Amino acid sequence: LSNSKKPKVGILGSGSFATALVKIFSDNGTIEIFWWIKKPELANQVQKLHHNPKYLSSVPISLPDEHISSDLVKIVNICDWILLAIPAAFLQKELIVLSSKSFRGKKIITVIKGMIPEENLVVAEFMNRFYDVEIKNIVVVTGPCHAEEIAQEKLSYLTMASVKPQESDLVCSYFNTSYVKTQTSNDLYGVELASVLKNIMSLASGIFRGLGYGDNFQAVFISCALREMESFLNKLYPINRNIMESAYLGDLLVTAYSQFSRNRNFGTMVGKGYSVKSASLEMNMIAEGYFASASIQYLIETHHLKMPILETVYRILYLGSNPGTEMLNLTASLH
Amino acid sequence: LSNSKKPKVGILGSGSFATALVKIFSDNGTIEIFWWIKKPELANQVQKLHHNPKYLSSVPISLPDEHISSDLVKIVNICDWILLAIPAAFLQKELIVLSSKSFRGKKIITVIKGMIPEENLVVAEFMNRFYDVEIKNIVVVTGPCHAEEIAQEKLSYLTMASVKPQESDLVCSYFNTSYVKTQTSNDLYGVELASVLKNIMSLASGIFRGLGYGDNFQAVFISCALREMESFLNKLYPINRNIMESAYLGDLLVTAYSQFSRNRNFGTMVGKGYSVKSASLEMNMIAEGYFASASIQYLIETHHLKMPILETVYRILYLGSNPGTEMLNLTASLH
Repeated sequence: LSNSKKPKVGILGSGSFATALVKIFSDNGTIEIFWWIKKPELANQVQKLHHNPKYLSSVPISLPDEHISSDLVKIVNICDWILLAIPAAFLQKELIVLSSKSFRGKKIITVIKGMIPEENLVVAEFMNRFYDVEIKNIVVVTGPCHAEEIAQEKLSYLTMASVKPQESDLVCSYFNTSYVKTQTSNDLYGVELASVLKNIMSLASGIFRGLGYGDNFQAVFISCALREMESFLNKLYPINRNIMESAYLGDLLVTAYSQFSRNRNFGTMVGKGYSVKSASLEMNMIAEGYFASASIQYLIETHHLKMPILETVYRILYLGSNPGTEMLNLTASLH
Repeated sequence: LSNSKKPKVGILGSGSFATALVKIFSDNGTIEIFWWIKKPELANQVQKLHHNPKYLSSVPISLPDEHISSDLVKIVNICDWILLAIPAAFLQKELIVLSSKSFRGKKIITVIKGMIPEENLVVAEFMNRFYDVEIKNIVVVTGPCHAEEIAQEKLSYLTMASVKPQESDLVCSYFNTSYVKTQTSNDLYGVELASVLKNIMSLASGIFRGLGYGDNFQAVFISCALREMESFLNKLYPINRNIMESAYLGDLLVTAYSQFSRNRNFGTMVGKGYSVKSASLEMNMIAEGYFASASIQYLIETHHLKMPILETVYRILYLGSNPGTEMLNLTASLH
């Protein structure tokens, strides 16, 4: 299919972040891009229009036709690196056509910020347990990064986390462009879990917003949320980490404060009195923080943790608790 | 003048935060409020209109006429506590009619977030050195708190810092209302300096905004700003503090992200190409972060520190450096 000596990276998923990645890799030029787009109609449209009509349509896509395909098995077979950019809630279902054998000799990059709902596992753990991918062959990409700003070439910093420094260094070299700066981390589990937690925190921040709490309170809330995140990570994966680095605090801030944040907007609707169901219908999607909340609650219970904010969000989203009452109670425990 | 057994607190200053304090103390009811309003015309108007026509005009003011005065010496003489709510840049000038004797037996509350420009001192140090007020008789009030939200009774958290726990506890009891929650801190110097630094950081965040940097970058910037603040405080006042508490991180966030932030808005204009002078004229005020930058630069040089963000802001505001070039250089050192 291709004689290039460049490493072949197969992007799985066709959402806004997947589309932003095609742009980054195209501008970087180090790797050969393959793109799995599930729906053949969409794959055809992208080939014909030279952009993704559904997301970031201003981003030009100039891949050879045969590099875009709806055949997942084929894309995975061709590529050296498999880049997972499918919403966590659907990953398990989409990968069902693949087996451990499909991933033999492959390395994984994941940009997914969420947990596999049925398994309560972060993506790296899931790929390890279900597809026998060794942890050392997985790189987690995280950091504050709304795809919309990549399309506009606004300066963004990404963190590549791996237990093997040479893998994260390699992946950095695929991402560096004039508008993307990269750094590495050895806290693979921590950054991945932080990127899940921050969606729930952002959803909580939205609920407060929807209930009418102001900027003074939001600032206190985010300070508390960061400390609860730190405590959660230290309980589950106690390594020496600085929670004030951009992979943790930065990622939390961009999600909690940005107008683009789906989790915050979803939370705002819940705070305003929409049910979870009507908020999802209204937004035409369910925010990742919603699914994450159930998995995190499972971990909280399994590990006998006390996490006031995360537990409150769970009760509101899953047990039908009243947002106003729950959040008022929560304010008493914050400082 | 009054036979009340309640402690008498004299608020010095008539800006938005001073006005918010009158509201808080009125709703709290523990203390007897006296208010120094410099300009007799304004003092008269407030007495007649029962609100401050210049700031937070929706807040009803119902103090006895003789509790509002333009006579600074009289107010200070009457009161047990002197509450400083005058912009730092003007404090020294306003207090010139007072002496160490005026403050004998008095205790100080300061809500000022700035340094005395000519002396490069935070307010507590200034009152100590120039008016012989013992540090143990000073309480610093800080935390994320835009006055506009106090007027709207939006829930806010304030921190009372003192080297003497019983003083900060006492002041907490004056501030607690349904919409103000308080907590104490023993880091008097640290919280005061943090409240100064955050104005400069917020100004920097505004410059980036004005230059067109987006939300992804802002999140990284704030993470870096918090770490630079921590490093600065640890160098100058090394005590055991958690920089993620709301007096530090929360205060930074509200200033850097809120629409009400004068420092951010000032920075945005500088980033858009306005000179410092025209930005001040346009806003009809100079942001506190502007003055703070010079004092902090003095401390940086005196203590031989390396503070990339703070030094960059100084060069832009005082040495005429180009904001675009300076901030681009700065991005290379952030992570």
